[in-house]
Amino acid sequence: MTDLRQQALDYHSEPVPGKISITLTKPAETQHDLALAYSPGVAEPVREIAADPEEAYRYTNKGNLVAVITNGSAILGLGNLGPLASKPVMEGKALLFKRFANIDSIDIEVTHRTADEFIDTVANIADTFGGINLEDIKAPECFEIERRLKERCKVPVFHDDQHGTAIVTAAGMLNALEIQGKQLDESTIVCLGAGAAAIACMELLIKCGAMREKIYMLDRQGVIHTRREDLNQYKKLFANNTDKRTLQDVIVDADVFVGVSGPDLLSADDVKLMADKPVIFACSNPDPEIHPELAKAARADVIMGTGRSDFPNQINNVLCFPFIFRGALDVRANAINDEMKVAAVHALRSLAKEPVTQSVLDSYGLESLAFGADYVLPKPTDARLLPRIAAAVAQAAIDSGATSLTELPSGYSQD
Amino acid sequence: MTDLRQQALDYHSEPVPGKISITLTKPAETQHDLALAYSPGVAEPVREIAADPEEAYRYTNKGNLVAVITNGSAILGLGNLGPLASKPVMEGKALLFKRFANIDSIDIEVTHRTADEFIDTVANIADTFGGINLEDIKAPECFEIERRLKERCKVPVFHDDQHGTAIVTAAGMLNALEIQGKQLDESTIVCLGAGAAAIACMELLIKCGAMREKIYMLDRQGVIHTRREDLNQYKKLFANNTDKRTLQDVIVDADVFVGVSGPDLLSADDVKLMADKPVIFACSNPDPEIHPELAKAARADVIMGTGRSDFPNQINNVLCFPFIFRGALDVRANAINDEMKVAAVHALRSLAKEPVTQSVLDSYGLESLAFGADYVLPKPTDARLLPRIAAAVAQAAIDSGATSLTELPSGYSQD
Repeated sequence: MTDLRQQALDYHSEPVPGKISITLTKPAETQHDLALAYSPGVAEPVREIAADPEEAYRYTNKGNLVAVITNGSAILGLGNLGPLASKPVMEGKALLFKRFANIDSIDIEVTHRTADEFIDTVANIADTFGGINLEDIKAPECFEIERRLKERCKVPVFHDDQHGTAIVTAAGMLNALEIQGKQLDESTIVCLGAGAAAIACMELLIKCGAMREKIYMLDRQGVIHTRREDLNQYKKLFANNTDKRTLQDVIVDADVFVGVSGPDLLSADDVKLMADKPVIFACSNPDPEIHPELAKAARADVIMGTGRSDFPNQINNVLCFPFIFRGALDVRANAINDEMKVAAVHALRSLAKEPVTQSVLDSYGLESLAFGADYVLPKPTDARLLPRIAAAVAQAAIDSGATSLTELPSGYSQD
Repeated sequence: MTDLRQQALDYHSEPVPGKISITLTKPAETQHDLALAYSPGVAEPVREIAADPEEAYRYTNKGNLVAVITNGSAILGLGNLGPLASKPVMEGKALLFKRFANIDSIDIEVTHRTADEFIDTVANIADTFGGINLEDIKAPECFEIERRLKERCKVPVFHDDQHGTAIVTAAGMLNALEIQGKQLDESTIVCLGAGAAAIACMELLIKCGAMREKIYMLDRQGVIHTRREDLNQYKKLFANNTDKRTLQDVIVDADVFVGVSGPDLLSADDVKLMADKPVIFACSNPDPEIHPELAKAARADVIMGTGRSDFPNQINNVLCFPFIFRGALDVRANAINDEMKVAAVHALRSLAKEPVTQSVLDSYGLESLAFGADYVLPKPTDARLLPRIAAAVAQAAIDSGATSLTELPSGYSQD
């Protein structure tokens, strides 16, 4: 770990500070180049955009530019360290956008007093971008922030910690339950954690068929139930009419455990109490709620997923956010709505069932890999993620009226 | 002009929209790369910055990142067309920052109702950047906006339309007057125009030695004089205690004419009324207050400058803003103060007096060029601009206490 620490610091500081920079996409050498790029030539696209704002997508980089915006109030698992300290994470997100979907992305760290001030600030700069990725904003403020920004902004606003996590979790969960021979609507689900990701995951699972009354959500005070009086409006939606109070109460006969909490909170004994053929997604990062080997030792019939790349079934947002934005940008969607999220879930599920490409096997040094208990989600190195998810999301945007386009752009196919 | 129009539109739209994009400065191919760039490795620089905010300059791109921020209220000579329409200009500015000083720059267009809201928005995102270049904000709001943002932001805030223009104008003017054998403090100055650039130019000329009472500034109502009651606080500083009311009244025996107004507002007859050996900087763009050939035909002893690249003595902000930010960023200055601006003036003046390099001659297709009536300012293609101005500005930042550094970074020299 010390070695990784120094490697990470060196990576960020050498040979230049940070991870991203600006590059020019047009020639800028001769006097003539500069006369087109700046005064006097630049007046021409200005006039075109003044006459028709949509022309900004033709003459500027707006249509491929996503802002990664945070206030640093919930940085990874590190907590509220403020806007400036979050900058390496946000630059990292920009790096992933570029690496996986060729989206230009810039980080914006916002200092503010009230939630209103954060919302005003983001709304006021939103026209600069083709989309806004909110990041690492703590619950429950993040819910209202996202809701109000969606109302005010003309471009898609997407809180990745909520929806990216939810999409990948739902896709993996549906595939895992299929392998276990279970139905989502018949499954009892224990969700340990009640923050932004937990609530978004459960809401999306419900949209995919899960029954709200079969979900037991737990926060630091234990099971969220109908007699508690300390619940905010978001947790209240998951208040279960039950006498059960602890994790040990609800884990008995549970089909599914989703952990979005902290390390080592689920024991081998807990796992033994679950129903036959359970699914455990222990997403706390870097240390999961239960180590996969410990869970497998407790019972052989479990399907395990974690947030880690060194175990099977990594629940990783990078499987979703670059591609969902790619699809949204390519049809100039005005939002990333539920239909588009569900389309991403199904595209991810389908891809996991296809034969794995040789380049994916090579990138993980594997001989073979096939849909099953150790492979419920595609790998991040799968080059098919980009075309498949982007196309499914773009088509869903068209079908749901989130864009004025009526067919996919050329180059897209939905096969 | 139609041809330039189509070329400019094609330049901005083909093969990709816009002029800038994001590129990665670090490897992002393998699983190991991504573990350093993002989770879990990224937590290490986050912790370092949380412990010491200055570390943001070591581990992120903040120290080389300038925001070009506007509300689109005074776009070039086109007026108030709003934030979105200004985007090609702001991307153009970002292109110039990169091209001339290797500064990473991103445009931010701000929608707002009140000046307060604009100020709050910019101040709230300022920590993201190493410096803020305000652009194309109309007077008189721009003065208060800049003043209050300077108070609130920890990084340099610089309104280029004011100070970039002023620095280049002052450098050219001082050299022109030297060639004409005149002293600035003895010169009568007519300034046609009373906007942001005009006021900043006159203020900087006064800091360089000009006498306020020898300046006649004119707005659309004519000479700004002490008996006018329609003056804002900024124009009021230039109210002259005079009976003169028109351009024709004040142009008689004037040594200097600075035009920051509109095309063809100075006539050949006006020029003939000026003192011997006058200096005329007709900066209206693209069409100057008087065409250089017309002025030269009216009298041979004039030194002419314009905003155009196709005549001698181009008064062009690009001679200043990339390099003044380069110097400020390289010593992490907390401001671009008057001392740094004056240092830039003198560095520009000095460079114009040195022998012109062959590559500059080649870039303009010239046989020779030497300090004199047709060469009072360096050419934008002069590669010495970057080291000379950046070093002078960085040294002035140190000398004036705008940085905690006490000596120039390695690689800098002040010879």
